[in-house]
Amino acid sequence: MSKAKPKISDAVAALRFDRDGLVPAVAQQHDTGEVLMLAWMNREAVAETLATGRVCYWSRSRRRLWRKGETSGQTQHLVEMRLDCDSDALLLRVEQTGVACHTGRRSCFFRAWRGAGWAVIAAPEIAPERLYPAPVDR
Amino acid sequence: MSKAKPKISDAVAALRFDRDGLVPAVAQQHDTGEVLMLAWMNREAVAETLATGRVCYWSRSRRRLWRKGETSGQTQHLVEMRLDCDSDALLLRVEQTGVACHTGRRSCFFRAWRGAGWAVIAAPEIAPERLYPAPVDR
Repeated sequence: MSKAKPKISDAVAALRFDRDGLVPAVAQQHDTGEVLMLAWMNREAVAETLATGRVCYWSRSRRRLWRKGETSGQTQHLVEMRLDCDSDALLLRVEQTGVACHTGRRSCFFRAWRGAGWAVIAAPEIAPERLYPAPVDR
Repeated sequence: MSKAKPKISDAVAALRFDRDGLVPAVAQQHDTGEVLMLAWMNREAVAETLATGRVCYWSRSRRRLWRKGETSGQTQHLVEMRLDCDSDALLLRVEQTGVACHTGRRSCFFRAWRGAGWAVIAAPEIAPERLYPAPVDR
């Protein structure tokens, strides 16, 4: 008997989701190595992302699937999905269109501790109001 | 009146911890950009890391502070701590001594989805038994 080809459902089955049914996912620009953001995925978000190649998260605040860029146009194309040793965290190697952060900055990690407060170390590349014609939604 | 200089307690106060009192922290090798691991920090771990410059996590399995490398010798020196836009995730720019993963691999994210299963894409650089003279502890 030949073994069935692994399917996306097998990819999802290998993950250890937390008690809310989520895993943290780190998005990294695949060629520059820049860490863009950390967000969350449920089973459906992982499966959709693998099936479509377009990154889909679970929005904890809105309690629904969040197809990154659906409002702002700042989509993430999946280059590779990686899994950690404990199977409870994902690294998404992505091609980011435009900016990842709702503030218009390339990365959400735009503050650094300098010993004199959290310093803003990156400027917006796009004005937030251009990303989200009111009302604000990410 | 002059404003008091921000202290480490102010750095911690800016964070939004989850209901378990934790935030996810992504460790990234500062010069190569490699994402090494994702772990968790509580208030004390963040404060100690900023105070000492040596990365300290909260071990959810052992329920105690986890000074990275305390058993294995594979320490992480903090180069810079970054905070995301929602104040609920940290990016640690670090200098990793040796390997980050308890399997002896440089990064914990050593599996990639290839459409035919989770493929192991990195080999151990150090034999795990050299990292942890029994019993196994991270």
